[in-house]
Amino acid sequence: MRLLPDLILTPEGWMADRAVAITDGRIAFIGAASAAEPGDVRLAGKALLPGTVNAHCHTFQSLLRGLGDDLDFMGWRDRVLYPFSERLDRDAIALGAAFAFGEMVRHGATTCVDFFYLNDDGNENAEAVIAAARRVGIRLVLARALYDWEGAPERYRESVADARRRVEALIATHRHEDTVTVQPAPHSPHGASSAMIRAGWEVAERADTPFHIHVAEGQYEGQRTLAEHGATPIRYLDALGVLGPRTIAVHCVWLDDGEIALMGARGAALAYCPTSNMFLGDGITRVPEMLAAGVRIGLGTDGGCTNNRLSVFEEMRMTSLLQRVRRLDGSALGARTAFALGTRSGAGILGLEAGVIARGQLADLVAVDLGDPSLHPRTDLLKSIVYAMSPQAITDVWVHGRRVLEDGQLTTVDTSELLAGVRTLTAGWRLM
Amino acid sequence: MRLLPDLILTPEGWMADRAVAITDGRIAFIGAASAAEPGDVRLAGKALLPGTVNAHCHTFQSLLRGLGDDLDFMGWRDRVLYPFSERLDRDAIALGAAFAFGEMVRHGATTCVDFFYLNDDGNENAEAVIAAARRVGIRLVLARALYDWEGAPERYRESVADARRRVEALIATHRHEDTVTVQPAPHSPHGASSAMIRAGWEVAERADTPFHIHVAEGQYEGQRTLAEHGATPIRYLDALGVLGPRTIAVHCVWLDDGEIALMGARGAALAYCPTSNMFLGDGITRVPEMLAAGVRIGLGTDGGCTNNRLSVFEEMRMTSLLQRVRRLDGSALGARTAFALGTRSGAGILGLEAGVIARGQLADLVAVDLGDPSLHPRTDLLKSIVYAMSPQAITDVWVHGRRVLEDGQLTTVDTSELLAGVRTLTAGWRLM
Repeated sequence: MRLLPDLILTPEGWMADRAVAITDGRIAFIGAASAAEPGDVRLAGKALLPGTVNAHCHTFQSLLRGLGDDLDFMGWRDRVLYPFSERLDRDAIALGAAFAFGEMVRHGATTCVDFFYLNDDGNENAEAVIAAARRVGIRLVLARALYDWEGAPERYRESVADARRRVEALIATHRHEDTVTVQPAPHSPHGASSAMIRAGWEVAERADTPFHIHVAEGQYEGQRTLAEHGATPIRYLDALGVLGPRTIAVHCVWLDDGEIALMGARGAALAYCPTSNMFLGDGITRVPEMLAAGVRIGLGTDGGCTNNRLSVFEEMRMTSLLQRVRRLDGSALGARTAFALGTRSGAGILGLEAGVIARGQLADLVAVDLGDPSLHPRTDLLKSIVYAMSPQAITDVWVHGRRVLEDGQLTTVDTSELLAGVRTLTAGWRLM
Repeated sequence: MRLLPDLILTPEGWMADRAVAITDGRIAFIGAASAAEPGDVRLAGKALLPGTVNAHCHTFQSLLRGLGDDLDFMGWRDRVLYPFSERLDRDAIALGAAFAFGEMVRHGATTCVDFFYLNDDGNENAEAVIAAARRVGIRLVLARALYDWEGAPERYRESVADARRRVEALIATHRHEDTVTVQPAPHSPHGASSAMIRAGWEVAERADTPFHIHVAEGQYEGQRTLAEHGATPIRYLDALGVLGPRTIAVHCVWLDDGEIALMGARGAALAYCPTSNMFLGDGITRVPEMLAAGVRIGLGTDGGCTNNRLSVFEEMRMTSLLQRVRRLDGSALGARTAFALGTRSGAGILGLEAGVIARGQLADLVAVDLGDPSLHPRTDLLKSIVYAMSPQAITDVWVHGRRVLEDGQLTTVDTSELLAGVRTLTAGWRLM
């Protein structure tokens, strides 16, 4: 199959009159748009971009959207997240995941990390999320959580031994799949014990996968890890031996200069969620400083009730805007950097060969309509995509070479049916 | 004519099974949706909201979108704004205005303030903007600029006598129109002399209109007015006698506590542009503090090359998000407040009886599709409109009772033709 758009964004810049050929889920080659071939997909008036990578989300939280708004973090957690996550059975978890994945695809995401912790003493719920991702057609990184803090709802929690065994089993089951990867994810320095964090790390080492952990989202965490473990969060993780190139630390709002340098020195990565950090009043991660220290960065939406959108394009824009205003410098973080964080850099931290249109890469692609008013004038197209683009400009999405969005419509699931399911499930839900 | 949506947002909250009757551009009554009448417009599956008010924009700047991105304020001004604003003849100004107004209407704005300073020693360009607003069908407040700082391009500048005479003439010409108002707008403490600011104020007093002025967008302005006038910007304006209930100060990023209190005491208003303030790296206006001091506030997008979108719904969301993260408090500024700033409060500062759905108010209305995925689940609809809504949920817009957007399409102008004009005009434009 060949895609023939007007323009293709390649590492060398925009290219016209080129075809992207796809074989077995990968980009086989990019070449001259010569005579028509069987299987050609003409994309007249469209530009082809690499798909965006949502490096951090909790899909079931999309079902809670609207409930937790305008609360502080603890209010959100205790009045919305904890009580409402108790209401979701396995069907509801699958429904919430499909609802969230659909929204992401419509907004140009081809990969989603679902940091998933509704474990219920097993892997069945995680399997339901995986099935939902396959159904919608998005590429999934299931960051299977390990959680043992007794303050959290019981269904999140496990013994270290159970968690280790189950994560290993889930990784093994999905080891050789095209569009699903499982990676271990101890919740956080406050949500997982040292033993649990170490267990997750050992699983990641053995399976040679990335390792996810929330770090320093709130200011309180620094004081707490200092009191409990004698070190601030990143130093604590380093002392545990779990800070390295496979570490994806989520948020990292409250790091001191030494912790930023340490992350860079160890080759650790950041999953950055600017809008969620704003929404919950967490604070502003020092992104340019982290980039300068050599930290690799991907962008995440976080859950659908702390944002409340699921668009990586929005997170690119917010990344740039928020750093500009923090630094009082309109040139603090430019469009090219923001775009790279939401595509190739995000893919890179997850271990995926995606996020760039080049031979051999995964065929995870997005087409945008150059005729959309928000992409006018076309003085600098990439900048307009990052700063100006309205979501209706996103028309088509391919994941692993499969067209999952066509002319703005999901090809894989019935959206009306999905939304009707959401309405039925959430009818009458109100803030507790 | 009666509109019959599923839900109507009124000051008392959401109401179902009601009709909004419109006569002569105003809401005649809101009553029971009784038996069908001739002229009924059924809006099944939709919710009716007050139209949003864009309290600050420079429409011609939409033509420069993409050019000025990733620069600091001075780079943006000197490499983009000044040189490219020289390229626009009257037709281009009208085209840029229509392009910007169209984008605003599609994103649910029913009123726009165009703070307009391409004067060319007369009012003809302003008349071209007014004609464009009539053509697209948006309600326009033409904030006719008064500018005499010699550092700016010549076409912006006038003598005080000329400016006074011309602004008065323009106000008189449009005094009794339904959808156009002209208000004087000395550029800023740095862009207009004391005599020019006073002239604008006197015109506003005589015509009994609001008075617009950019204030303290950049940190440098405080030092400059202190050196030149012996007072910080708001105190300087107060000493000039131009700070009162008719004053709309734009931006106000760098005010001290005393200036905020002074604005409140004088009954002055703020036109707040959060995204533009982020984009240019200006800083963060202290909005909750200003509200607490009694400052009335409307929301603006600012120009289409410092944002780079023209959506008041986006500015509502950004207002809330930015204050949350500045205050480290997820409850710093809630959805209801943000929505009010973008609707009734914005209308109020402009002297318009709009921004709320109630009897006697101007019939400036927006319908949103309750079936849009971004408005699911419907646990708190107003919060989802502010924080989650995608622009494609906005389907219909009425201004002064005229339907200017229908099923997402402008009814008044040919969008393709408009966009073709923009492409032709800007072909080959590159950063200077």
